Amino acid sequence: MKQYIFGVDIGGTSIKFGLFEESRALLKKWEIPTDCRDSGRNILPDVCAAIHGAMQEQRLRPEMIVGVGVGVPCIVDRKGVVLGAANIGWGVCHPAKVLEERLKLPVIVKKDSAMASLGEMVYGAGKGSSDLVMITLGTGVGCGIIAEGNVLTGIFGGAGEIGHICVNEAETEKCGCGKKGCLEQYTSARGIVRLAKVYLEKHSEESVLRNQMITAKTVFDAVKRKDEAAIEIAKQFGNYLGKGLATIAEIVNPEMFIIGGGVSNAGEILLKYVKPVFEQSVIPFCRGTRLVLAELGNDAGIYGAAETVRIEKHHSRKIF
Amino acid sequence: MKQYIFGVDIGGTSIKFGLFEESRALLKKWEIPTDCRDSGRNILPDVCAAIHGAMQEQRLRPEMIVGVGVGVPCIVDRKGVVLGAANIGWGVCHPAKVLEERLKLPVIVKKDSAMASLGEMVYGAGKGSSDLVMITLGTGVGCGIIAEGNVLTGIFGGAGEIGHICVNEAETEKCGCGKKGCLEQYTSARGIVRLAKVYLEKHSEESVLRNQMITAKTVFDAVKRKDEAAIEIAKQFGNYLGKGLATIAEIVNPEMFIIGGGVSNAGEILLKYVKPVFEQSVIPFCRGTRLVLAELGNDAGIYGAAETVRIEKHHSRKIF
Repeated sequence: MKQYIFGVDIGGTSIKFGLFEESRALLKKWEIPTDCRDSGRNILPDVCAAIHGAMQEQRLRPEMIVGVGVGVPCIVDRKGVVLGAANIGWGVCHPAKVLEERLKLPVIVKKDSAMASLGEMVYGAGKGSSDLVMITLGTGVGCGIIAEGNVLTGIFGGAGEIGHICVNEAETEKCGCGKKGCLEQYTSARGIVRLAKVYLEKHSEESVLRNQMITAKTVFDAVKRKDEAAIEIAKQFGNYLGKGLATIAEIVNPEMFIIGGGVSNAGEILLKYVKPVFEQSVIPFCRGTRLVLAELGNDAGIYGAAETVRIEKHHSRKIF
Repeated sequence: MKQYIFGVDIGGTSIKFGLFEESRALLKKWEIPTDCRDSGRNILPDVCAAIHGAMQEQRLRPEMIVGVGVGVPCIVDRKGVVLGAANIGWGVCHPAKVLEERLKLPVIVKKDSAMASLGEMVYGAGKGSSDLVMITLGTGVGCGIIAEGNVLTGIFGGAGEIGHICVNEAETEKCGCGKKGCLEQYTSARGIVRLAKVYLEKHSEESVLRNQMITAKTVFDAVKRKDEAAIEIAKQFGNYLGKGLATIAEIVNPEMFIIGGGVSNAGEILLKYVKPVFEQSVIPFCRGTRLVLAELGNDAGIYGAAETVRIEKHHSRKIF
């Protein structure tokens, strides 16, 4: 009997689904909008309905499903407990338990950035490596750390909260977390916009950025057009990210960094501003650490979620 | 037949040995001076002679020895290769191979700080935990990171090189590694002396430190006597270490930090200057991370080295 795995990635605006053969082939992927109303109470029922619908459509009986892997946009502790996920409205909950009860299938829930790093390791830019750090530059800054093939979780599920390491002692504006000078304040999509606004206010030179809505994309588009202000902003971005990566390299010593998330759509130009700072800031023996762009785009999460189920089955752990 | 394990810790001034029963009881410990002459070429023969001597004395036949764990003061990659260990004169070498050939026993070689963290986890301040970071404040700053019971090694064996994370962008003096503002420049034994000298030069107040040789010990002794200059120096030390630990906590999310090494002999007073800065600098959910003092002193290395052999045997990995 052929076996199948569902990979699910719950985000702030959409929930992505992938149906995989156990052999790793992706059969089908689709998405639905995330219903954040009423403290996100419809999200898990929506996930169940989507999976049941796909099972009916593909004529899959429960015994043909190895399990369901689910990435969520928040910290998950080792028992599967979520203490809260502001961007989808959740308070304290145990999503794996809820889903298992409704689906009658094995379910694993982990932080989305952990899932994405696993996806890139197995199917994307990290193929062949088992020691990597994936950085997701999106609305916030996420991170998945993989050491010898294992995703680090940390004692409360908080490993990889690198968006909040301090990279600027001199910052006066507060980050959402309450601290000042967090990496996220300069390298997330929102952080880049903030850098740009501050720069344009302080300087008077002409720039294409003055005549359009500023986003991470418009900043890097302007860099490609050699806009001087945009280049200065990209340098600041590269400076903070390069120094942040140096610190992570010295602590974890990965083989490579994979840069993903919406901001990374800027492409290779982005690495041009990060690499030199990284190499100059890091302890000499880590200079060779590779910096590459993610390859799976928005699909990294579903690939990684499916892979988590495969790994757990292989180790015959927990749920099987 | 009873089984035995040797734990060895090669340091810059002495080599420590422990003979353990497989049940973890320590039967005997002793040390010999480290002979660093001639690029440290006598070190491994000395280790072999000491082990052979102990085997004769205790009437242990080779088949009664599970293996020999050896901590070395340098980075060791996953294949056991050392690229160099300046403080004992070694260049590129493969100490495990050399020892195995001479001893005809299974040998595991790892970085001393990794061994020490394992020792504290199993026998010392980390008992009951499997997620901890041990910081060794000695001549330099070492670190062993344990996640879910496994010591992180990093792709080149460089995980935990936290002595060289940057904690002061404004530093003008170079660290031994070539960078500026490394944690080691402020929190190693030598770093504290440097902080003290700079402070005393810049300020004119009376201090007991002006009339004696300055060491980490005399600084913290003066703190205990409420010497105001010493208190200011301890605050600077605590500021850098607290911020460094915050960064590590955000990346690795351990259950606890264990502070060891010669500097930690100052006792609880040391934590008094680190804890408040840590709690104020770290992302809120990590504030509860415990900061404790190491308990095994100089013996952590031999305990951890023996434990490594036990773990490898348990997993039937590599050498057995």
